[in-house]
Amino acid sequence: MKTSLGCYPCFFTQILKTSAVLGLDEDQTQAAMARFGSWLAELLLEASPAANGRQVYRILSEISGIEDPYREIKDKCTQTALKLYPELKQRVRSAPDPLFEAIQVAVAGNLIDFGTMLDFDIKEDIEAILRQEFFINHYPAFQAHLAQAQDILFLGDNAGETVFDRILFEELPQRVQYVVREKPIINDATFEDAVAAGIDGIADIISSGSDAPATIIELCSPEFQERIRSADLIISKGQGNYEGLSEESLPIFFLLKAKCTVVAEHLAVPQGSIILLCSPHFPDISTAYQ
Amino acid sequence: MKTSLGCYPCFFTQILKTSAVLGLDEDQTQAAMARFGSWLAELLLEASPAANGRQVYRILSEISGIEDPYREIKDKCTQTALKLYPELKQRVRSAPDPLFEAIQVAVAGNLIDFGTMLDFDIKEDIEAILRQEFFINHYPAFQAHLAQAQDILFLGDNAGETVFDRILFEELPQRVQYVVREKPIINDATFEDAVAAGIDGIADIISSGSDAPATIIELCSPEFQERIRSADLIISKGQGNYEGLSEESLPIFFLLKAKCTVVAEHLAVPQGSIILLCSPHFPDISTAYQ
Repeated sequence: MKTSLGCYPCFFTQILKTSAVLGLDEDQTQAAMARFGSWLAELLLEASPAANGRQVYRILSEISGIEDPYREIKDKCTQTALKLYPELKQRVRSAPDPLFEAIQVAVAGNLIDFGTMLDFDIKEDIEAILRQEFFINHYPAFQAHLAQAQDILFLGDNAGETVFDRILFEELPQRVQYVVREKPIINDATFEDAVAAGIDGIADIISSGSDAPATIIELCSPEFQERIRSADLIISKGQGNYEGLSEESLPIFFLLKAKCTVVAEHLAVPQGSIILLCSPHFPDISTAYQ
Repeated sequence: MKTSLGCYPCFFTQILKTSAVLGLDEDQTQAAMARFGSWLAELLLEASPAANGRQVYRILSEISGIEDPYREIKDKCTQTALKLYPELKQRVRSAPDPLFEAIQVAVAGNLIDFGTMLDFDIKEDIEAILRQEFFINHYPAFQAHLAQAQDILFLGDNAGETVFDRILFEELPQRVQYVVREKPIINDATFEDAVAAGIDGIADIISSGSDAPATIIELCSPEFQERIRSADLIISKGQGNYEGLSEESLPIFFLLKAKCTVVAEHLAVPQGSIILLCSPHFPDISTAYQ
């Protein structure tokens, strides 16, 4: 997915929000805005929003000297999610279709994204999203692929959401590999966050080898590039991963909430929709299920 | 009113919207974004958002070669407003307090601002806004000052809104001077737009001598600077004029809808509020009315 001109205002909103998290003063924030502004001449629309957005975090990291501004927020988020775990777990276990309920829980976890929203009441939002219908729902295709898959990669998104993802793994017959970012970027899950969510007990945690807030294959380590190209089935969580992978010919199901207008337009769904999408570029037999 | 860091994303949204009006292609719009971005190092937060926003329109005007991109939209807006005139006029005339009703109509006209919104259904919005209560309502103070004023300046805002302002003048016992921008800027009313709205029949039309989308005194002509400093009573329409004049010690009543979060925060009102505000810097007796 390309960067849209509509992403430009949002890049500046991200500077504003992250500066607040970092505790930058007005002069520092203004300096970050100006530095990002002067970089706009180098921005490539062909790159994904997440790829271009890395510049926001690079500049803020340099100005603040803080490499992981969301450390505390991520910890808090994981702790909050862990408190919700028993209730959500029970909900899934007692549902008529535990796998589908777990998918719904996992997408509910996707609302925990401090990169695009700061203020919300987690519990209320989760309840609302658990009542929301999928706008795109390729669940039958997902079930069919899952039944055949041996080697499943799960591309994680944010810390906290990790706990909700774990509930989904626990419903899968196969052990999955859970992919985290190599280094801290926004509130995205790193190895540390995945372990804090208890994922190490149920899945293998591997790194993408990249600090992009997305899975952008050419930025990933050679090992991971090989790994993703060999997977039978890839479950991709969140907007960032979608932005990076939407055009790749890989066996992907995208599970996300379309939070911003640009992603919603790319998916041709109303903003705020939740979707379980079998990639239009899913190789081979997938087309039979779409 | 100073520029807020929260204005930065909005400057880019303005580039996006105005580029669409101008029919710029992706490359041209991206070039405008990059040029504005590189200018951010020169942006002064001490200047008002409207003063800094002029750079958006300067760049777009240079790239497009079009000096008055909103010409057609402004004409259409004035024509639409003129069609509404008889109905609104009758509404005012049959109201229990025609002056207050005319103020309400004038503020309803303030929603016609293509600088901050593009898509709306005028009639519906006007009806909704005519039902809306003023969040700040200094009407008794306004009546008291109006009873004593000899020399009234009315600072216009957008084309189309001009017709609604005219309905307000027609309820005032005194002939007012209606102030327009010297040159086209966004959809703000110029001499031509005021004449098209029929204002020349009921008020004297004068120019601020400036092309800022606001009344920023130091950017106005020396004649106008003298003029505004000698007025008994100033009625200031819209956000732009408020941004420029909020700190001036002048006898101003601000009549506007707080459309953006930055202006709403400065006024300490919820976003979307309509207000008739006696300036906190109103000289002399005004404090007795606040």
